[in-house]
Amino acid sequence: VVKILVIGATGTIGQAVVNELAPRHEILHAGRSRAPLRVDITSEASLRELFGSVGKIDAIVCAAGNAHFGPLQTMTADQFKIGLDDKLLGQVQLALIGAEHLTDGGSITLTSGILSREPVKNGANASTVNAAIEGFVRAAAIELPRGIRINAVSPTVVVESLPIYGPYFRGFEAAPVQRVAYAYAKSVEGAQTGQVYCVG
Amino acid sequence: VVKILVIGATGTIGQAVVNELAPRHEILHAGRSRAPLRVDITSEASLRELFGSVGKIDAIVCAAGNAHFGPLQTMTADQFKIGLDDKLLGQVQLALIGAEHLTDGGSITLTSGILSREPVKNGANASTVNAAIEGFVRAAAIELPRGIRINAVSPTVVVESLPIYGPYFRGFEAAPVQRVAYAYAKSVEGAQTGQVYCVG
Repeated sequence: VVKILVIGATGTIGQAVVNELAPRHEILHAGRSRAPLRVDITSEASLRELFGSVGKIDAIVCAAGNAHFGPLQTMTADQFKIGLDDKLLGQVQLALIGAEHLTDGGSITLTSGILSREPVKNGANASTVNAAIEGFVRAAAIELPRGIRINAVSPTVVVESLPIYGPYFRGFEAAPVQRVAYAYAKSVEGAQTGQVYCVG
Repeated sequence: VVKILVIGATGTIGQAVVNELAPRHEILHAGRSRAPLRVDITSEASLRELFGSVGKIDAIVCAAGNAHFGPLQTMTADQFKIGLDDKLLGQVQLALIGAEHLTDGGSITLTSGILSREPVKNGANASTVNAAIEGFVRAAAIELPRGIRINAVSPTVVVESLPIYGPYFRGFEAAPVQRVAYAYAKSVEGAQTGQVYCVG
């Protein structure tokens, strides 16, 4: 049994990750507005408050973070910054601060997404941010101390989110969210580091 | 003969790109402090002023942009933002604004770097930013209007920069800057889009 902090625990992917890991481990549920532990990953103060309150943990899973969707031709720098500040820098800050609160050999699992390798219209911000997260994970893996590992899960659109995201992902084979949850378990309960687990 | 705006024209790579393209094309030399045309790619106002002054152009090459180098364990969000604001968002803004000033079928060529795929210690910010640029180029390529193309050149360390960057890149085979310049010519004078031309 290890102690796992799941951020975005009430989201579609987060819930599936919790369901997959809860039978074997202790789960701390965190999120922006609905989970028992509140955290805003874009705020260093909020992250420090969260980690101060939970003590040492063995694994961090992040299934949270927003990017901007919209046409490239009218995209402004401020719109582009949404993904940079939230899904990218939010997860990077989580990793940098979270690493201090992990036990030796602990792990960090971030979320990128299939748009890093297969772009869609209106998705330039997400493609950029997802690719960035994958680059960060490869690099951070070789510098994290005390045997701490870091990986990313890069899922395709999930079946359960098709009502919302389906129109963006025509022609993509959707993955059941359970299959995506396995990738998070592989990261947390496996032994690899610096990996991008692509699902779909 | 096409009209090519080269940003970072006085840098090691920029000079080589100019030397490669100048015999066949008209070159506009731009840069932060030493080139005839001054531009700060992190400033939208500066970019708009530049493009307002040069009129319609056929190609944009960017060989400019900084990232932060330093240990992951002590890296702050503000340090991490250096690369996000400069090499990443600077080049993204250049592409978004520059596209409006390109002729039909024009091209944009950005610069990423080998750290996107092969990380080194102290290079987490550069790995992230370089991967992000490659994700952006793949995505922007499918949305740019009027046949405008966009690619990235992702060079290894160049021989001519080894006195400065060599210690970061032990074991990497350096490429002569002329070989890197060919990749920019391939992007500008070729016909592909959404490509990442890896050199080294």
